[in-house]
Amino acid sequence: MGFALFIVSHLPPTLLSNKKNLEKESINMRILDIIENKKNKKELSKEEIQFFIKGYTSGEITDYQAAALIMAMYLNGMSNKETADLTIAMAYSGDTLDLSSLNEIIVDKHSTGGVGDKVSLILLPIISSLGVPVAKMSGRGLGFTGGTVDKLQSIPGYNTNLTTEEFIKQVKEIGISMISQTLNLAPADKKIYALRDSIACVDSISLIASSIMSKKIASGAQKILIDVTVGSGAFMKNIKDAKKLASEIIEIGKLANRETLCVLTNMDEPLGYAVGNNLEVIEAINFLKGEVMPEDLKKVVLELGAYMIKLAGKGENLENSKQAMLESINNKKAYNKFLELVKHQGGDTSYIENVENFEKAKFMKPIYSEKSGNIAKINAEEIGKLANFLGAGREKMEDKIDDAVGIVLSTKVGRKVQKDDVIAYIYANDMNKLELASEKIKDIIKITEDPVRKNKMILDVIM
Amino acid sequence: MGFALFIVSHLPPTLLSNKKNLEKESINMRILDIIENKKNKKELSKEEIQFFIKGYTSGEITDYQAAALIMAMYLNGMSNKETADLTIAMAYSGDTLDLSSLNEIIVDKHSTGGVGDKVSLILLPIISSLGVPVAKMSGRGLGFTGGTVDKLQSIPGYNTNLTTEEFIKQVKEIGISMISQTLNLAPADKKIYALRDSIACVDSISLIASSIMSKKIASGAQKILIDVTVGSGAFMKNIKDAKKLASEIIEIGKLANRETLCVLTNMDEPLGYAVGNNLEVIEAINFLKGEVMPEDLKKVVLELGAYMIKLAGKGENLENSKQAMLESINNKKAYNKFLELVKHQGGDTSYIENVENFEKAKFMKPIYSEKSGNIAKINAEEIGKLANFLGAGREKMEDKIDDAVGIVLSTKVGRKVQKDDVIAYIYANDMNKLELASEKIKDIIKITEDPVRKNKMILDVIM
Repeated sequence: MGFALFIVSHLPPTLLSNKKNLEKESINMRILDIIENKKNKKELSKEEIQFFIKGYTSGEITDYQAAALIMAMYLNGMSNKETADLTIAMAYSGDTLDLSSLNEIIVDKHSTGGVGDKVSLILLPIISSLGVPVAKMSGRGLGFTGGTVDKLQSIPGYNTNLTTEEFIKQVKEIGISMISQTLNLAPADKKIYALRDSIACVDSISLIASSIMSKKIASGAQKILIDVTVGSGAFMKNIKDAKKLASEIIEIGKLANRETLCVLTNMDEPLGYAVGNNLEVIEAINFLKGEVMPEDLKKVVLELGAYMIKLAGKGENLENSKQAMLESINNKKAYNKFLELVKHQGGDTSYIENVENFEKAKFMKPIYSEKSGNIAKINAEEIGKLANFLGAGREKMEDKIDDAVGIVLSTKVGRKVQKDDVIAYIYANDMNKLELASEKIKDIIKITEDPVRKNKMILDVIM
Repeated sequence: MGFALFIVSHLPPTLLSNKKNLEKESINMRILDIIENKKNKKELSKEEIQFFIKGYTSGEITDYQAAALIMAMYLNGMSNKETADLTIAMAYSGDTLDLSSLNEIIVDKHSTGGVGDKVSLILLPIISSLGVPVAKMSGRGLGFTGGTVDKLQSIPGYNTNLTTEEFIKQVKEIGISMISQTLNLAPADKKIYALRDSIACVDSISLIASSIMSKKIASGAQKILIDVTVGSGAFMKNIKDAKKLASEIIEIGKLANRETLCVLTNMDEPLGYAVGNNLEVIEAINFLKGEVMPEDLKKVVLELGAYMIKLAGKGENLENSKQAMLESINNKKAYNKFLELVKHQGGDTSYIENVENFEKAKFMKPIYSEKSGNIAKINAEEIGKLANFLGAGREKMEDKIDDAVGIVLSTKVGRKVQKDDVIAYIYANDMNKLELASEKIKDIIKITEDPVRKNKMILDVIM
């Protein structure tokens, strides 16, 4: 490295005996300068940020130096330029996926997370059936219920581990592939995320934006749609923080030359009815089959889909796109696309054709309302935690998810309910947990005599 | 630990299988809360600070969590109460010295460091000869020249490693002992100091104050005098920062119930003439023998001594104390006390009686002034670095100091000088270094035609 030699040349000759040590010392000196600059609220240069990401990924910069720098970034803030430079440095810290051989605009979609979020499973087959190519690499879930990959894996035989070549070939052939993130994408982001988690720095909006966008850039998307969830079951608890996150994401997209759009969606109650892997997959399949679906889930699917179609250059008018999406459900094109996807990736399509085939939990218990009134609140975070308690999620990456367990709501905020109506079903493989969860859920589903409005689902669109 | 059990009792029975892991997790959770609180500018409680110091000293809290917390402490600041709680927690993190068996008020003295600072070597024998007991444990020097222990060790045979019992016994018998810090005093401070050094957080005034005071409290002093040095050769470069440090130190002293006093002294030029271990010991011995001494060193010795006598309850009137100190030099009591000290600790007193016995550097070169004028500046930091270059200091704790090398100035700021007057002597064991240093020193000693004032030595007293 040039700077090492530069320093060496200024040392008296007697100190030149150990060049290796000096190089190590100069790395240490340079990261100290970078920490010092951020500590003193100076904007870091692109080169300084690249130096940090490269050194931290390789292990030459220690965890404690990275921890100090990240805390300084957290407390002194990051300019848009710094955030974009950090994002790009992280995006190029490992493998990157090159989708240019597809010769089409690839739009990636990402949600900042929620409870009962089966949107990708429904949305992606729909837009694929409308000619928008889908090349989707997803991660596994941590916390409330599983991620999209966990849900796909609950279909017996479904192979989420295609090679990059197989993945691209399938997108060319049938217009859709959904696999797990097997490449070493943005390893710097993984390392920094784990560190942030250990030093109480997860809740930095700039660092969240940077983390999300680094993975999207590494995974080869030309255009990016981010579903920024807002509410009790989301990472962003209020609209103000969600807007801030969205504008940081948009800013990074601009500086990284990736057109990006954020839709802010409500995550105050669980999305749709089902929470738990098999239960959510069944809800998604039923949606694609044209069954009557909860309004909240439908609104989110149509809004995100219309914007993805627009970004892909396949339809400017959002209302027309939404109509086309509904049409693709009615004429079974979307459902057939999903069947085709599952078949191509080795999944047992009999499960899709007959959802009764999915493994069932040992116990299922209906929960009855103890009074009449209006549903005032179904706290998504609490429902998510309860589903986790039943075994539907994982606390640590090595934990195993129980696909069969979970919760199916049979009501939504704003609806009326009579005493003794079923308000939810609990699916459990453990009798003790079933009993505890049955009591707990009655506290979570709040009923009031006052009239209650339904949740507004699309809170904002930022581009 | 109580909190671990508290958390366990709230978990569902199925999660109770691995209590050990849960305890570990609860330590992790609790340090996360502490980082979170400091990050959000909440004042940390005494219990939280103790938890951090205990966990970090034992290694249960990681370096990266400590790094994040320290950066948050740096950037969000610390209240006086937090700083005092941190100081006390660090002071009691390892061994503590109990001096109560001496049945006298023990006053400890500490300098925040400088170039040519041989004050302790002169001052402590003087006040001991006046009946103030001296039980002094010193550290080694890092950076410009050695610490007091390094200087004492340049007297052949002088044993700095007494046991605590020998140390206390000697103070009882002859009223003075000066040893190195062999006990495991304030290990948390050592660990945190090393960490701060690796994360660009050395320059936090609260953390500096806390570091200084934790060692003084652990070493058993009832009253504490801190010489806060100010200027180019000191850690505090300006009077504002020095005053801030002094008031934080005083505040800690109050909250820790240790009467403390700070004297702010000038460290813009080296103190006295000599810089380098043997050279400084010789200057100190000559001072005690009553030779004519540089005014700056004399002023600092008398001022600090008068306050130590006052703190020890042996004389309220500062002017009278200064007169008594001068008297103890004139009547050789101070010199004899030093001889007694060296003899009791196994040192060869012939070196004290005849300083010509000290090992000499291979080369000595006088430096001549290239013009006539007034000495405008002798940058202490630059002189310190030059002495280090010759081998008089250490960069790392394992480096060996060359006792014989260094610099002896023969002028001071504010004095007149004629062309071809000797302005300094360089002592070196390496001809190349001698030549480089001879050139360099001419740049450091600035000469001007304008009249120049002498440096004011005592800048403030804060109590």
